[in-house]
Amino acid sequence: MTSNLHVVIPAGGSGTRLWPLSRSDRPKFLHDILGLGSTLLQSTWERTLPLTDTDRMWVVTGRNHAQAVAQQLPDLRHDRLISEPSPRDSAAAIGLAAAIIHRDDPNAIIGSFSADHSITNPEDFRWVITQAVAAAKNSDIVTIGITPTYASTAYGYIETGTKLQIPGAPTARRALKFVEKPDATTARKYTFSGHFRWNAGMFIARTDAMLDLFAQHAPDLYAGLTSIAQAWGTSRESSVVDEVWPKLHKIAIDYVIAEPAASAGRVIVVPGDFGWDDVGDFDAVAKLRQPAPGEQCAVTVIGDTPVIAVESSGVVISDTGKPTAVVGLDDVVVVDTVDALLVTRRSDAQKVKQVVKRLQDRGLDAVL
Amino acid sequence: MTSNLHVVIPAGGSGTRLWPLSRSDRPKFLHDILGLGSTLLQSTWERTLPLTDTDRMWVVTGRNHAQAVAQQLPDLRHDRLISEPSPRDSAAAIGLAAAIIHRDDPNAIIGSFSADHSITNPEDFRWVITQAVAAAKNSDIVTIGITPTYASTAYGYIETGTKLQIPGAPTARRALKFVEKPDATTARKYTFSGHFRWNAGMFIARTDAMLDLFAQHAPDLYAGLTSIAQAWGTSRESSVVDEVWPKLHKIAIDYVIAEPAASAGRVIVVPGDFGWDDVGDFDAVAKLRQPAPGEQCAVTVIGDTPVIAVESSGVVISDTGKPTAVVGLDDVVVVDTVDALLVTRRSDAQKVKQVVKRLQDRGLDAVL
Repeated sequence: MTSNLHVVIPAGGSGTRLWPLSRSDRPKFLHDILGLGSTLLQSTWERTLPLTDTDRMWVVTGRNHAQAVAQQLPDLRHDRLISEPSPRDSAAAIGLAAAIIHRDDPNAIIGSFSADHSITNPEDFRWVITQAVAAAKNSDIVTIGITPTYASTAYGYIETGTKLQIPGAPTARRALKFVEKPDATTARKYTFSGHFRWNAGMFIARTDAMLDLFAQHAPDLYAGLTSIAQAWGTSRESSVVDEVWPKLHKIAIDYVIAEPAASAGRVIVVPGDFGWDDVGDFDAVAKLRQPAPGEQCAVTVIGDTPVIAVESSGVVISDTGKPTAVVGLDDVVVVDTVDALLVTRRSDAQKVKQVVKRLQDRGLDAVL
Repeated sequence: MTSNLHVVIPAGGSGTRLWPLSRSDRPKFLHDILGLGSTLLQSTWERTLPLTDTDRMWVVTGRNHAQAVAQQLPDLRHDRLISEPSPRDSAAAIGLAAAIIHRDDPNAIIGSFSADHSITNPEDFRWVITQAVAAAKNSDIVTIGITPTYASTAYGYIETGTKLQIPGAPTARRALKFVEKPDATTARKYTFSGHFRWNAGMFIARTDAMLDLFAQHAPDLYAGLTSIAQAWGTSRESSVVDEVWPKLHKIAIDYVIAEPAASAGRVIVVPGDFGWDDVGDFDAVAKLRQPAPGEQCAVTVIGDTPVIAVESSGVVISDTGKPTAVVGLDDVVVVDTVDALLVTRRSDAQKVKQVVKRLQDRGLDAVL
């Protein structure tokens, strides 16, 4: 469809707030966490594939997840699966994909889309990305801004400026600046100003424009990624990777690309109203899967487990098949796996990461 | 100690409000439900044995639980374990024990004590029972009345009359009548009147006095039980049991013994202040096992399972060994077994029996 678009899916992150479903050896993106019949990774693939073709679909993931990714995405070309020897944050992950793609396709545009987000309207999503690709043609960095529906303190924000008149991107605006997760007062101010949007962590850019920013703002990282890209797919690949990768600077792509480019007035934001959620915790899972009006049970069940709910609401996620009863609890969250059990409430879902920390303190790493 | 006392422990009842711990094939009394290191049955044995000796200790239980009972009570004599082919309620269970004991020891006094109650002060308990035995010498039926600490609607009540002057039983009073579980208003009236006590379901009586009441108020049952008792321990035992037992009238002993005897002015009540609880639901379990002041965790753990509690209180009962996290829930009850899971709150613990009903409706009898 958009012929020079390469889709890059960074599949990383630990998702500790989704313990015990999300584990270090089987993180969030490998799970059908919303009970839709496909994992978050598979949904991302299905949603983005129509934007390009299989030959331009890439996944970047940790070495220990590469096999699971390949299993879940049988159409992913073997040479499009970039596996990282160790986590080196998003700048290295996306930068390496950009460098490899650029080597073989100097006119490429890449679009980077997290493997573990939820989007309810894929068609609108693709229309937004099509605009973003059009807006990226002049070497600007294009990002997607989600209209805030509440004053979230869990997301970063993008301040938007004037509407641009870009052919094929009627809704694109200049992005003035990126701001990190704000406090509640600031979030409220941003949300109701009409000038701020959530940063959905998507980037669409020409690879040459992106790599220029790397060269300018992270020259060591740029040199390392370029040398790996040159060796990629050759007999030198593994020796170069083993030598260079561990020394790469661990940094989020926002600091290397988004913020410097915004300061230079080179970022465009395309408003994205397609039902986006980062599925950050079990409250989000429950919200995304809440029973439709008329559904019998006020408790949503994800997994093939008989659930008896007496005067209760919330969500039960289970891969044990074990009959589960919930009595007299509203907005409860029960997550039952073969080797760990979590019980919480939707309103406390953010605190689940404390559990992971305390399990570590107690040496129970086996269930992390 | 009290040489002609035979202790009878009826070990029955399904305990559906304690699902999924209590099961039809492994009911409440077989569990160390309070995490004390011995099961409720074993605690009952240990508490009552000093009142008599091993030769006068009896257990009446269902045929399918006889093996488990024998395993848990290695000192129980094989010929003191009365196994019922099918449940026929408490009159048949206790009546059969009385008839068998009476056959061999016409001067026997029996004391019947449920296998699944909690008593915090065994020494005071034994002092009360010693008084009850003294009070039973004149062919009265003696019961134990617990001082109500709140207006419970879950227990039956005994109305007490004047203090009697019985040698060896200084606290014994006449019992005026038995009343079944009252409504809340009546319970409040009873509780604060000072004249009512909870019926703890304990009976102490001469076997001849008890059997006379059977003969008078349930002649068919009396005839059946007597014929089984005559055959007991002989070659005819199993054929007589198989023939007679299934036809026995299913009735609670209260209707055959307690109420008619009370009407006839023949019941004595000994006040029992020894920390009694019938461990009827998980709220009782949580209350009985609540953390002592200074204990680190506000969540009580019963079972050998690592529990991480974040801003929570309540109880986790688990025999899975599976790390369990509870986040942001007060007074929560989590019961995790290998094949079923319950999550509720202490205040809703009574509703657990609805779960059992709904599991039956859904054909999930395997976990009942």
